[in-house]
Amino acid sequence: MYDQNTICAVATAPGMGAIATIRLSGSDAIGITDRLFKSPKDGKTLRSQPANTLHFGQIIDQSELVDEVVIALFRAPHSFTGEDVIEISCHGSSYIQQRILMLLIKEGARMARPGEYTQRAFLNGKMDLSQAEAVADLIASQSASAHALAMKQMKGGISNELKLLRNDLLSFISLIELELDFSEEDVEFANRDSLLQLVHNINHLINSLVDSFQYGNAIKNGIPVAIIGAANVGKSTLLNFLLREERAIVSEIAGTTRDTIEDVVTIEGIQFRFIDTAGIRSTTDSIESMGIERTFAKIDQANIVLILLDATDLASCNFFLENEIHDRVLSKECAIIINKIDLATNDDLEKIAEAAKGFGFPLLPISVKRNIQTDILVEFLLKSVHKEKVPENGVIVSNVRHYEALMKANEAIVRVMEGLDHGISGDFISQDIRECLYYLGEITGEISTDEVLGNIFKNFCIGK
Amino acid sequence: MYDQNTICAVATAPGMGAIATIRLSGSDAIGITDRLFKSPKDGKTLRSQPANTLHFGQIIDQSELVDEVVIALFRAPHSFTGEDVIEISCHGSSYIQQRILMLLIKEGARMARPGEYTQRAFLNGKMDLSQAEAVADLIASQSASAHALAMKQMKGGISNELKLLRNDLLSFISLIELELDFSEEDVEFANRDSLLQLVHNINHLINSLVDSFQYGNAIKNGIPVAIIGAANVGKSTLLNFLLREERAIVSEIAGTTRDTIEDVVTIEGIQFRFIDTAGIRSTTDSIESMGIERTFAKIDQANIVLILLDATDLASCNFFLENEIHDRVLSKECAIIINKIDLATNDDLEKIAEAAKGFGFPLLPISVKRNIQTDILVEFLLKSVHKEKVPENGVIVSNVRHYEALMKANEAIVRVMEGLDHGISGDFISQDIRECLYYLGEITGEISTDEVLGNIFKNFCIGK
Repeated sequence: MYDQNTICAVATAPGMGAIATIRLSGSDAIGITDRLFKSPKDGKTLRSQPANTLHFGQIIDQSELVDEVVIALFRAPHSFTGEDVIEISCHGSSYIQQRILMLLIKEGARMARPGEYTQRAFLNGKMDLSQAEAVADLIASQSASAHALAMKQMKGGISNELKLLRNDLLSFISLIELELDFSEEDVEFANRDSLLQLVHNINHLINSLVDSFQYGNAIKNGIPVAIIGAANVGKSTLLNFLLREERAIVSEIAGTTRDTIEDVVTIEGIQFRFIDTAGIRSTTDSIESMGIERTFAKIDQANIVLILLDATDLASCNFFLENEIHDRVLSKECAIIINKIDLATNDDLEKIAEAAKGFGFPLLPISVKRNIQTDILVEFLLKSVHKEKVPENGVIVSNVRHYEALMKANEAIVRVMEGLDHGISGDFISQDIRECLYYLGEITGEISTDEVLGNIFKNFCIGK
Repeated sequence: MYDQNTICAVATAPGMGAIATIRLSGSDAIGITDRLFKSPKDGKTLRSQPANTLHFGQIIDQSELVDEVVIALFRAPHSFTGEDVIEISCHGSSYIQQRILMLLIKEGARMARPGEYTQRAFLNGKMDLSQAEAVADLIASQSASAHALAMKQMKGGISNELKLLRNDLLSFISLIELELDFSEEDVEFANRDSLLQLVHNINHLINSLVDSFQYGNAIKNGIPVAIIGAANVGKSTLLNFLLREERAIVSEIAGTTRDTIEDVVTIEGIQFRFIDTAGIRSTTDSIESMGIERTFAKIDQANIVLILLDATDLASCNFFLENEIHDRVLSKECAIIINKIDLATNDDLEKIAEAAKGFGFPLLPISVKRNIQTDILVEFLLKSVHKEKVPENGVIVSNVRHYEALMKANEAIVRVMEGLDHGISGDFISQDIRECLYYLGEITGEISTDEVLGNIFKNFCIGK
């Protein structure tokens, strides 16, 4: 099913570290390493050592000492890939990593393609396809909620759910096909009402999985939040405030440097992705010059919209209280934030509150700079997330590929329902059910093509 | 001698990778991990497992699955630090790394300080101080020559050399001090001539180590090369050409991304560091506006100076053929590169050659753009490096701290020689020899203070 070459790659993050790990997998992994490795203690080969053991020694190039390393030895099938696996822990200089890779290649290994280790694990039955995809999500997870989602999927969350669905569909199809065998005799093994009930249940389940995608995708990639407002209402200050909150938590643990992506903030384990609304900063008061279309586009991308007003500047508020904005944000979680309340008079505040009231959105009067009532903003963000649709069974779809397969499976199920309603013949219904099974099988990899597999694993990093 | 806390840190490079390794060291390393680790196979604790074994299982926070990991178990004294060591290989998301560190800290570990693992290895007698320092050099090594240097030092190169020196000095001092014991009787146990010979030998050895530092330091940090020339003579093209040569080699191995530092080029395993001479780019023809002082400063920093001339522009050449430049570069490896020979007439070339001849430097007529004779330039660079002073014994000093200690040791030895010459009394000579021994002991760490150790290890990365 796949080429049996022994593959190698650096499995740890690129760059300089105290140590780095190079991973080999394949039937010749142990043999290749043995040709480069010298154990100073007993001179024994790795080949003669038991599985799951560690061996200190030297990597030698001809007679030159390349590095002192620790070798971890795993034997098929009890390894990540299901093949013989060697992990070489060397000193973390990029020069040494490169040098050892070159030696391994010279001895017959080849560079692993992106995701090839995980692909082999899938092909050797160590995990199904949705679990393999969860490995990539797990590695990319930046927040507690994304981590929990990926971990659940890796432990078979969606696979188990789909297994139940498939079992139901298979028993359904067997009844239908039994009828077809006896079609001459016009018997009905399957009670049409209970069949319809079953298909309705399946449709409901698939629908709830499909619906969970918006939430799952947001958790995985960060909940998109648009902050819209005129220039100088305090957007940057607000973002910095939220970023500072996060940094304070991160910096408690020295040495865990993380690449912060601008405008991504994790609050209580949930990642929010603030959509760049810089385009509407350079403005005057007139609607035309505000680039209203751009603002609309930002709003469309967001799940949550924060309308930021300056309590001291009534003129800047009026724009955002236009009805055109209102219609756009109706389908979003939206709040009106009245900033700089420390600088405003009571009269100002009353006027703004009066004007904004008609929207029916929560009004959050705060001062970011003086840290007045900022907690109500954080509360609003968290509350908005928890309003997202989560299916009763708690299984959440976060993968676009799964989402698309579920959509197609659902189309087939809808045809089955219609067919049953209209008394269409069993062989057509059977065909639609088989199509539904096909798409569900694609998710777990029971049905897969080289092209599908190629597309999935090319997005992995090398070394995984 | 050091606090016995169990320490933890991420040992692999920061950022996202397929896997990451978290290292624990200390008497409670196994106990702490056991409280978080669950083996799905046999439920056995790590505590009950033999040394040098690998264990697949789960890291659990209360009842939440944080990650599936592989644990490497080492037991004192057979580990890098000489203590019990646990290495946790987890999925390489920064979130998971951070989460596991937090759990370890909650269970009683503390974050390791920079270099603390290596410091413990030193304090537990696993390596001497110069070997510990070589670990940091090894991790930072970017070229074959820097790697070979660090590896030699890690295997005890300079330590062995110093041990011989110390033995000689100790036998010398014992003779001198024996004389002091019998000073009333005016005996002379130590033949003054052979003593003087011995001290001269020692002085010669230390001197050659001191002399090797310029080469060792250059290998470690890159050989400094200044390219001086007027604007548009082709400096950037030359650098890009050299960088391209290197990249072609590097890119043969996919997946080994390395952070290229601008203007550092590795040729045949030797790193050259091109000193930024951008300051003399924006020039006219007049000497004053060329920033001659800045050019001088660049030349002083360099081991190798390339004077780059444009064969088609005689006026731009004249400046660099001034005698003021000539005097400065006399102590350097220097060549005059005549670029753009493809565009020059024979007449131009003859005139330039004539003008440059008086310098006595090699003339290298090339065309970088058309890749004509560029190999003679590469040859010149490599040849210049091999002219550097390498001691007969092949031991090269690359560490500033060692260099400084050797300089001080040498001062003491010079005083001993003078003392012997002037027939100074044995107790003064003995004192100077003890001072020499002290400085040599500082290098290997036989003599060390908390302050010295602190200064050495603070420059390590965390996790090493």
